[in-house]
Order: sequence, then C-alpha cells, then structure tokens
Amino acid sequence: MEFPSKLLEDLVYNISQLSGIGKRSALRIALEILRKPKEYSRDLSESIYDFKTQIKFCSQCHNISDKDVCDICLNPSRDQSLICIVEDIRDVIAIENTNLYTGVYHVLGGVISPIEGIGPEDLNISTLEKKISEKNIVEVIFALSATIEADTTSFYIFKTLKNLDVKVSVLARGIPVGDQLEYTDEVTLARSIQNRRPYESNLSNH
Amino acid sequence: MEFPSKLLEDLVYNISQLSGIGKRSALRIALEILRKPKEYSRDLSESIYDFKTQIKFCSQCHNISDKDVCDICLNPSRDQSLICIVEDIRDVIAIENTNLYTGVYHVLGGVISPIEGIGPEDLNISTLEKKISEKNIVEVIFALSATIEADTTSFYIFKTLKNLDVKVSVLARGIPVGDQLEYTDEVTLARSIQNRRPYESNLSNH
Repeated sequence: MEFPSKLLEDLVYNISQLSGIGKRSALRIALEILRKPKEYSRDLSESIYDFKTQIKFCSQCHNISDKDVCDICLNPSRDQSLICIVEDIRDVIAIENTNLYTGVYHVLGGVISPIEGIGPEDLNISTLEKKISEKNIVEVIFALSATIEADTTSFYIFKTLKNLDVKVSVLARGIPVGDQLEYTDEVTLARSIQNRRPYESNLSNH
Repeated sequence: MEFPSKLLEDLVYNISQLSGIGKRSALRIALEILRKPKEYSRDLSESIYDFKTQIKFCSQCHNISDKDVCDICLNPSRDQSLICIVEDIRDVIAIENTNLYTGVYHVLGGVISPIEGIGPEDLNISTLEKKISEKNIVEVIFALSATIEADTTSFYIFKTLKNLDVKVSVLARGIPVGDQLEYTDEVTLARSIQNRRPYESNLSNH
C-alpha cells in the first residue's frame, strides 16, 4: 500500500503494530483521527504516553495502579486474609464488576505455557508464597481461565502452597447462567453433573 | 466498568471514542500498549499528534499531503488533463495501488447525503468547476461508490459540468473479476448485460 504522506504512513504503521488491526483498519482509524477535533488527537496522544510512562504496579498484588499500592489493597473494608489469584488485570476488572468479592487479589501476569516459553519463574508466584507465609491468609481462590495452561498453573501453585496452612478453593465450573442445556458442550455438562449441589428453592442459584 | 487506575481509564475512554471500538476492545489495546516497549508508545503517541497537527491538504486536488501540493499533482509524468473524481483519500490509495491510472485526482471529501445533512456546498465541487473552466482538462472520470448517494452526487456534478467542454466518463459496473455468475446479485447482472462489450480474444477483458 502506497501512502500520499509520510505522516500518514508512520501513523498507519504504528497503529497496525497492535494485534488484530491490519493496515486497512489502521488507515480507517488514522482518517477518523484526522476528522475528529484537534483536542481529541492531543488527548489520545497524551493519554497513551502518560499511561505507559506513569503507570505503576501494586507492590502487594501486582495490579496496575496510579500509586505504589493499589486502592483495593489499601481499602480497610476489604478482607486482607482472602486472596483471589487471577491471570491478568482484566480479570480483576471483571470480578470487581460483579460487586460481590470483598477480598484482595494477586495478579500472576500470565499462566504457565511451555509453548510460549512461559515458566513458573516468569509469573508472580514467589511473592504469593511470601505473602501467604508471612501474613495471616485464610483462603486463596483460583480464579483462572478454564484452559489446560491455567489448570497446570493452578496445580503448580497448589503444590507450592501445600505445606502452608491455607484453604485453597477454585471457581465453580458449570452451565453459564442464561445458557440452554442442549447447547452446552459435553465436558461442561459432565462437570456440572459431577459438581451438582443441593437445590435451594429461592433464586440464589440462578 | 471500574478501572484500577485513572491513567488506564482515560486511555480506554479516548480509544473507545473511535468508531467500532468498544470499551472492552479499548482495554485490550491499552494493556497491549502496556506490554510493548516504551519506544512503541512514544512513537504511537507522537505519530498521532504529528499527523493531526502537520498534515496538509493538497491545494490542487484536496488529497492529504505533507506539502501544499501533493506528489501526484506535482509529478510531471502524470496526465494533468485527466481528472479522476473520488469520494475519499482511501479511494486515491486504492486506485494508486492498481498502478494503472496516470491522470490526477479530485477528492470530493464525501458524497451528497440529505440524511446526514451533507449538501453540494459541503463538498469540494466549486474548486473542480474552477479547475475545469481554467485549465485544459480533456476528461473527468467519476470513480465513486455504487450507491444511491454517490450516483446522486455524480449526476449533480455532471449537470454543473454540462456547459464546459469536457468528456465525462464513469467506472465500469459489472461482475467483479473472480466472482461466480450464480452468486452475482440481479442488479449487477442486469447492468452487466446492458453494458456488454465486444469480445476480445486476448485476456485483456479479464
């Protein structure tokens, strides 16, 4: 693709470095930036630079934060003895949006994946062990994805925590709320039969 | 969606202002920017700002350019008496990529659309008239989309050019190269029968 301007070419090149955005989409985005008011491109440009240069990672839980310790870890009304282990910052946001979880988090920064060359030493596992052995942690919850890599990671962490006096739990696997039974895949359906639970007549299990 | 950081929230907000990018995709892009090296966010940030603040529009054809007159209009080997009328800068790039067109362009900046409140006075039509009446233009080619709005625009411009001594042509409409006949829509098929042309035994009409 030939461009009528070096400025456009540079911008399209940079945008198309993002995964899932090809040259054609990048060009569409560039021309949209051109149509929008000057303030927009200034704000966008500044927020990219500020985010990358000023963002911090919480020293307690590795969540991103504007400060050295994130708001969740600093919040006195959160249960510091309950740790939810997640893969990514996006998972923290997803769980926070349920408005149900009152403990704190520990962000691993990925899962063990030999194919992608990610081993346990690349993840925030040692700081988790340290936290559990030093602080009064009652329970850790594995809130990882339902993939083989995530299961391997949970098992690895479970083994390292075995000698520590802490309860370990995992998110329930089953039929997603709102899904129809006939379209649920076999593995999920089998797991939901194995993990069946006493019926409660109120709607709390919906 | 609640964010653990104001910096992240601002960036996600700004990215999600682009059409076709929701909050969730914006978050994915933001976290990808975070993972990439610092140089990338600097380059992306700068190229957005530079593009918006330094880009120019060619005074001859309204194409975007780094200079006051674009490279196509300045190129002495291009036929200045042949003007291709297009809607958008992207159309210039598409036609240039065919490596077949040797004339110059005129970018309208849109098409007449009463629904979107775009009238003829919002498009670069007066400069086209001026160019044709003042310069020695032999032919103009309508290279607009195959939509009702574009057809209306072509017709409007055709009427304004009627008294000027210039040949007016339009891109061929027909079955796209590589398409199967049975899947071609009826209107296109009907048009391609009406506009049938003498068979040439070489492959030039393929």
